[in-house]
Amino acid sequence: MWEVIREVYDPKENYIYETLFTLANGFVSIRGIEEFSSTYKPLTFVAGIFDGYKAQVPELVNLPNPFGINLYVENERINIDFLKMTKYQRRLNLRSGVLSSYYELSTLGLAIESERFVSRKSLHRIGIKYTIKSIGFKGKIILENYIDNTTANNLFDPANKVQHYKLQQIGSLKPGIYSVVKTYDRKHKIAISSSLLGVGQNNDNILLDRKYIEIGPNPTELYTCFLNKNSSITIYKFVTIFTSRESEKPFEESVSELEKFVAQGYETELEEHQKAMESIWENVDVTIKGDSSAQLGIRFNIFHLFSCASNDPTVSIGARGLHGEGYKGHVFWDTEIFMFPFFLYTLPNYAKNLLLYRYNTLEGARKNAYATGYKGARFAWESADDGTEVTPKWGVDYLGNPVRIWTADEEIHITADISIAIVNYHIVTGDDEFMKNYGVEILLDTAKFWISRLEYNNNMDRYEIKKVIGPDEFHEHVDNNVYTNYLAKWNILKAYEYYHWLKERDKGKLCLLKTLLGISEEEINKWRLIAEKIYIPRKDNQLLLEQFEGYFNLKDYVVTEFDEKGMPVWPKDLDLSKLQETQLIKQPDVVMLILVLPDEFSYDEMKKNYEYYLRRTMHKSSLSLPMYSIMGLKVGDTRNAYNSFMKTLLVDLENTHGNTHLGFHAACAGGAWQVVANGFAGIRVRKDGELVLDPWLPEHWEELSLKIFWKGVPLKITVRKEEIIIESLRETDVIVKSKLYHLKEGTNRIKI
Amino acid sequence: MWEVIREVYDPKENYIYETLFTLANGFVSIRGIEEFSSTYKPLTFVAGIFDGYKAQVPELVNLPNPFGINLYVENERINIDFLKMTKYQRRLNLRSGVLSSYYELSTLGLAIESERFVSRKSLHRIGIKYTIKSIGFKGKIILENYIDNTTANNLFDPANKVQHYKLQQIGSLKPGIYSVVKTYDRKHKIAISSSLLGVGQNNDNILLDRKYIEIGPNPTELYTCFLNKNSSITIYKFVTIFTSRESEKPFEESVSELEKFVAQGYETELEEHQKAMESIWENVDVTIKGDSSAQLGIRFNIFHLFSCASNDPTVSIGARGLHGEGYKGHVFWDTEIFMFPFFLYTLPNYAKNLLLYRYNTLEGARKNAYATGYKGARFAWESADDGTEVTPKWGVDYLGNPVRIWTADEEIHITADISIAIVNYHIVTGDDEFMKNYGVEILLDTAKFWISRLEYNNNMDRYEIKKVIGPDEFHEHVDNNVYTNYLAKWNILKAYEYYHWLKERDKGKLCLLKTLLGISEEEINKWRLIAEKIYIPRKDNQLLLEQFEGYFNLKDYVVTEFDEKGMPVWPKDLDLSKLQETQLIKQPDVVMLILVLPDEFSYDEMKKNYEYYLRRTMHKSSLSLPMYSIMGLKVGDTRNAYNSFMKTLLVDLENTHGNTHLGFHAACAGGAWQVVANGFAGIRVRKDGELVLDPWLPEHWEELSLKIFWKGVPLKITVRKEEIIIESLRETDVIVKSKLYHLKEGTNRIKI
Repeated sequence: MWEVIREVYDPKENYIYETLFTLANGFVSIRGIEEFSSTYKPLTFVAGIFDGYKAQVPELVNLPNPFGINLYVENERINIDFLKMTKYQRRLNLRSGVLSSYYELSTLGLAIESERFVSRKSLHRIGIKYTIKSIGFKGKIILENYIDNTTANNLFDPANKVQHYKLQQIGSLKPGIYSVVKTYDRKHKIAISSSLLGVGQNNDNILLDRKYIEIGPNPTELYTCFLNKNSSITIYKFVTIFTSRESEKPFEESVSELEKFVAQGYETELEEHQKAMESIWENVDVTIKGDSSAQLGIRFNIFHLFSCASNDPTVSIGARGLHGEGYKGHVFWDTEIFMFPFFLYTLPNYAKNLLLYRYNTLEGARKNAYATGYKGARFAWESADDGTEVTPKWGVDYLGNPVRIWTADEEIHITADISIAIVNYHIVTGDDEFMKNYGVEILLDTAKFWISRLEYNNNMDRYEIKKVIGPDEFHEHVDNNVYTNYLAKWNILKAYEYYHWLKERDKGKLCLLKTLLGISEEEINKWRLIAEKIYIPRKDNQLLLEQFEGYFNLKDYVVTEFDEKGMPVWPKDLDLSKLQETQLIKQPDVVMLILVLPDEFSYDEMKKNYEYYLRRTMHKSSLSLPMYSIMGLKVGDTRNAYNSFMKTLLVDLENTHGNTHLGFHAACAGGAWQVVANGFAGIRVRKDGELVLDPWLPEHWEELSLKIFWKGVPLKITVRKEEIIIESLRETDVIVKSKLYHLKEGTNRIKI
Repeated sequence: MWEVIREVYDPKENYIYETLFTLANGFVSIRGIEEFSSTYKPLTFVAGIFDGYKAQVPELVNLPNPFGINLYVENERINIDFLKMTKYQRRLNLRSGVLSSYYELSTLGLAIESERFVSRKSLHRIGIKYTIKSIGFKGKIILENYIDNTTANNLFDPANKVQHYKLQQIGSLKPGIYSVVKTYDRKHKIAISSSLLGVGQNNDNILLDRKYIEIGPNPTELYTCFLNKNSSITIYKFVTIFTSRESEKPFEESVSELEKFVAQGYETELEEHQKAMESIWENVDVTIKGDSSAQLGIRFNIFHLFSCASNDPTVSIGARGLHGEGYKGHVFWDTEIFMFPFFLYTLPNYAKNLLLYRYNTLEGARKNAYATGYKGARFAWESADDGTEVTPKWGVDYLGNPVRIWTADEEIHITADISIAIVNYHIVTGDDEFMKNYGVEILLDTAKFWISRLEYNNNMDRYEIKKVIGPDEFHEHVDNNVYTNYLAKWNILKAYEYYHWLKERDKGKLCLLKTLLGISEEEINKWRLIAEKIYIPRKDNQLLLEQFEGYFNLKDYVVTEFDEKGMPVWPKDLDLSKLQETQLIKQPDVVMLILVLPDEFSYDEMKKNYEYYLRRTMHKSSLSLPMYSIMGLKVGDTRNAYNSFMKTLLVDLENTHGNTHLGFHAACAGGAWQVVANGFAGIRVRKDGELVLDPWLPEHWEELSLKIFWKGVPLKITVRKEEIIIESLRETDVIVKSKLYHLKEGTNRIKI
């Protein structure tokens, strides 16, 4: 179960498949465009290349499209939108990261096979291979290779169309073509070089009569090829891409890298790429026996998730990955809360880079705090390249009426979400160096923000946070959202804790840090006292948390009806414009709190809150179902776990939210992995630092297997109905179903 | 019968309709692209804008496309290739020169009406009107107006694709967009400006939220519009275009003309355009009663023919008009021999301009003579902007093998063809001034070329012209082609005659001319003697002319079989590679000679040669049938006249040659008019200067009516079976069926 296959060609579905078939290596991403159709929207991203020119806020820039290719038979462009295809197939092999296509054009007497990959080994290389087979045809084929410098942003929002780059230079290589463009605001330079190599059956060059031309801004090479009856020719296309973010001389590097790539050969690079893919899969693969649909689905989600992972500590992963224009490439809490755990447990180096992105954008976060009248570091609700807040202030509804977007102002829990990821990173990896150099600084400066953000309520002798939005976005401008307040408190207490942790380990570093952040120990000791007085709203019975102050006074609706897909139906008498006045919520809020800080709550609290809030949740976010699924498993409600998991897996594969064309739901993919790891395998880390496994498998699953890194040691965990098998490289402890086991090096079998 | 209508939309036919629906005003031409499809090849020409950059020979430059427009509903571009149209109609009204379209998109709840015109009044203006009607739709429409600066030449020959211009400047007007480009070699600047005006039902502006952006090289305006249920909005698009050929400051002029155009309004300009069209139709219309198909066909051909007519004496009409890329916009003998008679008799001012184009390119013709070792002026077989020879020297066959093209070297009759047009112009118009200032100079300098081209055969005491191609292109490198030799002789004799004509009228001018051309009277008198000795090959019986020396010795094949369309079938035992060794011909050659110089031959000669050569003609040129049709009528063979005429009319309307996408067959259109005027109406001018009418109507025609200018006087001629009605503005003589009539002013009825 490694292949996502498309076998029916309907141009109307192309934009969805462009997302599903995106290839990315964390550095560059190219959507799965059908280059032989006229129904494609080229979209090429390089992580970190944002620009704000003429756009409301900085956007991940749609770069020139290096996939420009046309084939002409009898001087007519081959266009699969208009030619009858007697066979069509496009396959994404998740294991190898190769996208293959087959177009059989019997009326022309031709078949075209293609494959492409974005190298996971050499991040600046993209390889494409076309095999043109005669199935009756004999004659001339004109080949046009070009770089399309007319691409623009906001492909699906034409009123906001904008091209973020200006042409600097285009030209002819010997052979090949190149293009250098420069973004307007950020002045990033992007250089793309490309050349072809064509061989016939006797391995001789078949690309004849080269002509270099410039059409508008597009460097273009034209070639003539001849195809004999029932023979075939193969054309390799080499592409390299460099930017001024990682190179002083992107143009020169793109050219010399192209030369190396061509000299080395397509097949060699493909092999290297596949090796690199294998070594990732070795760590991230999840196998599910007995459920081929879940098996393919989880791999599909994992594939696209790690496709976005980068070694570059100045970039993170946007809400739609590198896969589309949704949310303009901006980074949300989605990364730390939903995607991060996958990386933390399977690819901890990438996880570290995600946190370093936050560290490297701390200046932006400080600016955000300062600009809104607070202290310390306040992470942006939407973050691009420098960490400053880039959430659009105003949007428009369908009729063009302005709508104020409040998330930047109010959805401040993001700052603590990042602190949670940092602390979890430390617990799971034991990476003290990271904490010393980066983590503590973030914890302290975010705590400083929270302290400045709190308001003291004299009457009640408590600290409050007013006018916020919690994870549930149905309710804006609420006071004392329990998720926000709890995390603020936790963030401050962790800062206090890690202050002392660092004091014990590295006084010199701490001293420098205190000066850098302008804090004193006296102040930090006060923080702890303040934190303890932060108001946590609860129902009087103490078990039920109140989502925000006054929530329980709202009109109470309970979901009682479900549609054919099992999704909640709005209560009949509900006035949708008065949603804010009801207890209905978009997605978990209190339940999220319990999920992200599980040690803070008792089993009974979990169960009570789960039951209460589940019945009031409309699941209007794709992040809702997987979280309830995990929590359900935790509290013994397994009824919906499997269905919710499958819905999560298929969000993009079946385009259930209708917006897959805007990119892949990266947080959802992370959520799916969490359902597998934290839900079905029941992995969690206890307060006391012990690894816990509490597995539960859906009835038809024979076996679930995955690998995690625990304190730097890989553990391969296989869960079956009656046993857990753990392969460990080192002795370690694990608690299974409340019982402590001491694992030996090698294979351990634990009956359950 | 004024409308050419398309009612079935099949994208595969778009490129044919682009030719059929081309709008041109002699200055600028825009093909009938379906701007809401993805199957169109924008092609915009300005007469005289040639460039040779990276092309084998100079080509009429495909300029930026000012028709860039996109409509987005729910952020999805309206694309008629993929949307189901519940009604589609496109109509070209030949009378008004307006192209209207109707697209009913029921699934969107929308219908779009459009119309466009290229103003015949203000040659730099193009107007487009879109009416968007809700048929259920309510909501937002995004409108994108742009100038496409990515157009290129050789749309149907991708291996030779080239963009002839470079971007100079693009930008935003207030409101509107503009673009200035410059061709590489000739350094022509072309400025295009465009703006929109949008009104709703209360006549208020509906174009909201303008945004100006640049996408690659394309200036672009974005607007938002709102459409209410069952209402409609109208968007006018104004375009102006100026070039450095006619303006010192094309950019400034395009902007100020745009401002005037907008201020004046779309409807006002449309009215002016229609008046200008009316006044042309008043002179050129041909009415045929009793045959609606012929009626529409002749108007269609006339429409496109006069669409190419220009007031600019430095441009002429290419073989495919301004309607496509066929023959790269080059001017052939097609203009003077096939198209010119139409203009001569109906729009003599345009006819004069066509000849002035030759006068204005005389320097090029002189260079052609000099470069090939001759004297005087030798007109190019293919002529572009400066008259130098631009025929490609080499072409390629389908397999890419080089093929030497010999027409530039050998098809020299073009030089005398132009002399014939000049003399005919003088006879029909009586325009002595033209002859004094231009005509005589051309006659003398072309005669000088012929004199230098002749070779004296001492044995035979005759002058010969060796190694030529006559009108029949099946036979190359022939000696003493009778068409060429006869015309050379005639050209020299006419030069002699007009030398003396000018001597009688304007000695001073003649004196200057002699110095300019470096000729003496003594020399000219010798020319006459030489001309008389030019060898005219004939069969011994004296009536049958021999197409070229040795033709009658070739293997004789006679066409005996015809296909279902009545076209000749190759004889069965023929080896096509040895065509040159047979008497089969592509198109009339001897018969052309008799047609272009009818006074030189007796009726018996005509008949004899017609009968002989017709049976050996394969009609592989679209110019063949109409010529045989006229000659048939002259010699009383009326059998094929009507069928040949209809085939000629429908060459483009039914794409019978399969290459209408490359432009309209302008010579064919001129040929069709000649069949009507010189064939059916039987108009000709006798040697003695008398106007002759010898009409014959196909059986089902009730009436044929047309207008001609005779010595500056318009004569409206109506032919019926039993009478001819001639409305004349002045007394004049006419010979009908060999009998002289003295016409009075007003209506004259002559029984036949």
